[in-house]
Amino acid sequence: MAKAPVLTPQAEDFPRWYQDVVAKADLADNGPVRGTMVIKPYGTAIWERMQAEVDSRIKAAGAQNVYFPLFIPESYLRREAAHVEGFSPEVAVVTHAGGKDLDEPVVVRPTSETVFGEYMAKWVQSYRDLPLLLNQWANVVRWEMRPRLFLRTTEFLWQEGHTAHATELDAHAYAVTVLRDVYEQFMVDVLAMPVVVGRKTRRERFPGAINTMTCEGVMRDGKALQMGTSHELGQNFSRVFDIDYLDDDGVQQLCWTTSWGVSTRMVGGLVMAHGDDAGLRLPPRLAPVQAVVVLVRAEDGAGERAAGLAGELLRLGVRAELDTRVETSFGRRVVGWELKGVPVRVEVGPRDLAQGVATVVRRDTGTKEAVPVDGVPGRVQALMAESQRALWDDAVTFRDARIVDVATIDEAVEACADGWGRIAWSEVGEAGEDRLAQSGVSVRCLQREDGSLPGTDEEPGLLAYLARAY
Amino acid sequence: MAKAPVLTPQAEDFPRWYQDVVAKADLADNGPVRGTMVIKPYGTAIWERMQAEVDSRIKAAGAQNVYFPLFIPESYLRREAAHVEGFSPEVAVVTHAGGKDLDEPVVVRPTSETVFGEYMAKWVQSYRDLPLLLNQWANVVRWEMRPRLFLRTTEFLWQEGHTAHATELDAHAYAVTVLRDVYEQFMVDVLAMPVVVGRKTRRERFPGAINTMTCEGVMRDGKALQMGTSHELGQNFSRVFDIDYLDDDGVQQLCWTTSWGVSTRMVGGLVMAHGDDAGLRLPPRLAPVQAVVVLVRAEDGAGERAAGLAGELLRLGVRAELDTRVETSFGRRVVGWELKGVPVRVEVGPRDLAQGVATVVRRDTGTKEAVPVDGVPGRVQALMAESQRALWDDAVTFRDARIVDVATIDEAVEACADGWGRIAWSEVGEAGEDRLAQSGVSVRCLQREDGSLPGTDEEPGLLAYLARAY
Repeated sequence: MAKAPVLTPQAEDFPRWYQDVVAKADLADNGPVRGTMVIKPYGTAIWERMQAEVDSRIKAAGAQNVYFPLFIPESYLRREAAHVEGFSPEVAVVTHAGGKDLDEPVVVRPTSETVFGEYMAKWVQSYRDLPLLLNQWANVVRWEMRPRLFLRTTEFLWQEGHTAHATELDAHAYAVTVLRDVYEQFMVDVLAMPVVVGRKTRRERFPGAINTMTCEGVMRDGKALQMGTSHELGQNFSRVFDIDYLDDDGVQQLCWTTSWGVSTRMVGGLVMAHGDDAGLRLPPRLAPVQAVVVLVRAEDGAGERAAGLAGELLRLGVRAELDTRVETSFGRRVVGWELKGVPVRVEVGPRDLAQGVATVVRRDTGTKEAVPVDGVPGRVQALMAESQRALWDDAVTFRDARIVDVATIDEAVEACADGWGRIAWSEVGEAGEDRLAQSGVSVRCLQREDGSLPGTDEEPGLLAYLARAY
Repeated sequence: MAKAPVLTPQAEDFPRWYQDVVAKADLADNGPVRGTMVIKPYGTAIWERMQAEVDSRIKAAGAQNVYFPLFIPESYLRREAAHVEGFSPEVAVVTHAGGKDLDEPVVVRPTSETVFGEYMAKWVQSYRDLPLLLNQWANVVRWEMRPRLFLRTTEFLWQEGHTAHATELDAHAYAVTVLRDVYEQFMVDVLAMPVVVGRKTRRERFPGAINTMTCEGVMRDGKALQMGTSHELGQNFSRVFDIDYLDDDGVQQLCWTTSWGVSTRMVGGLVMAHGDDAGLRLPPRLAPVQAVVVLVRAEDGAGERAAGLAGELLRLGVRAELDTRVETSFGRRVVGWELKGVPVRVEVGPRDLAQGVATVVRRDTGTKEAVPVDGVPGRVQALMAESQRALWDDAVTFRDARIVDVATIDEAVEACADGWGRIAWSEVGEAGEDRLAQSGVSVRCLQREDGSLPGTDEEPGLLAYLARAY
């Protein structure tokens, strides 16, 4: 009798596979309030790794972290018309607190944009205060009717950056720096995800932005996931919030602002970009556990050797774990580590040790090899590097196979059944976007032919990337 | 004419001094909703340093981070009578969300205790799942009528740990580990604060706990600040939430649980433990900026030398910053760095450089010395170590001078006018606590004579530490 699969196979039912892996790899659980999520230890560890990597890049780009309050006066949201339209059906409102009804209800932040605006206006006085580069890590709430763990939850964790600049050029340059040097660089180098980077069309643009740029991930079911966005807000936002400054001639000027963010959605994106029918496949640079040393049986000194190897890996700077739960069957433990996508597994048992070896297994390929015990730490490090590269190569191959060049909207819709379509933007236009939308397809982003970022939507020769999206 | 002081002197008006320093050192600002707080970049940097240090100790103690939702069903809070009593006047309630009134209002977490309880009950099945050691970093909300930045705010940031154990002994040992190896060790080693560690009396205990242990800080006005607590909850909490397990004989048993937390209050505590009339004095191990290189004037290659020194410090692992804002007066910049409590300041100017030296200044003592340029990095590191020790020594001297042995309640109240009283617990008792409370004094904690933790409140020979508290 064939073994029942641990997860619903991807080919059978991808959304079900996703649910299964989120549950069985111990990433998250549904919260008690509809649409909310309990992020379990392993899911939290993955998010913390993402946070640390993104945070260090944000700091390297010169921004400083701040923390604004969870509660925002209702009146703030009303100040920006585009905001009210965008968020008001989604906001949660506190009407009762401290044992009585509130005179002015307060909103639970759907973003901190308005309160950033209010304080940035206070903090920016002269050109000497510019650029003001701020970032915040926090939870935000948007009431969600069709929740899905990590991808779409009523509460999610994210970072939102808000910056003010003296010139449009400086604001543009910073928005691009965040897009390229923070987001894309992190997604490529750490997540091993060949994201498609481009400019959003007017239709897909963030309300109030003059330019929205995006990193779009290619999921294993051929859909797109928006992984991170960086917006130029022009002077729209500073006009509403009076973010102005005295220039060096003593003239009052409006600032140019940007905003940008990534969220716990990225966890879902990582799962769907690399996962297979056995579970997650984590790129080693991201993995909270890069190598696990699994003790097969505690006999003939195997326990000591396993502990010794784990210790040596830790000393080499590998995020290693030791699994000595011999009371649980070996096979079951292996299935567990595969589900969790730990890049390298070292199996240490008395039979192998009698031959002076341990079995080293790569998660991404499943390749097993017998390695002399002394050589294990070095081999683990080498396999981590190989695995990082192989996951990247796999993902690039997958992306390139699934993105099909098409000439018409009809062909594009067909390509988007299980992949992406790439088409001349001149063939689509805003009317074409309406037609695509009827088939659940959207323009994920525009690029120049050489892959660079367009300066406007109207440039000739632009390519549009089309897909269904999460 | 004497210069106006930068801050209200501590001796003149300590609360006002605190307000001044929080504002002028750029730590925080009032939020738009009453009682909320905007944590500015420097305040956030201090909190992030605290978080990183506490988090690594929590992980070393074996706990794993999780993230539970912000919103809790109202019914959860009602499950635990002690909770309702403790929190219900303080909770904020969301009654409207997603464009309509909610069928069941949800509460914004005042703590995640109840939702931890609900899920721990699901996650713990057998003795193999124990101990379950969880921790969460998050924001919580308790509606605050008399807010004070960092010390008492409607929303604050904290960590809350929740653990479940098979035996009372194991739960006790873990609660003590957190108290000693996480909290006390961090406060002593990093914050340079000689906290008074002991057991809370029944009156001061956390609702539902069988034992609350605390680290109490001594503030420069002689008051106490509770810096962190660790609670043994016995089986009270697991009984309410059905956190039980099958033991190895197959018998159903209730768990023993603990909880423990520290918050952004610690920032206020750090300010009031070490600050002086010129501003903060940060212990180097905590300081987000350990050394600042201040360029006096950009002449004769001084700019290059200053940048070179800052670079060298960074390479040595010192968290260094470079201040080249020569358009702002030197004196004003120095005042700013003193306000921010940066431990070591290196002043680099053409006049000193002509002599081959730079001026190195210690923030804690104000001591200035001319140091040959090549020797500056080494000297900065040495001064950081000296300053860490000196702040500790100062704080110990202050604590020992302000804690007075007294024999009666009346003497205790007198001692607590500007310090602490230490008295035989047998002289106080629960009746004595009522009398003390009338004078605004409370028992901060109980210790054995040798400073160790009492097993119960009833042990003979216990000492009570008394103070007014924030």
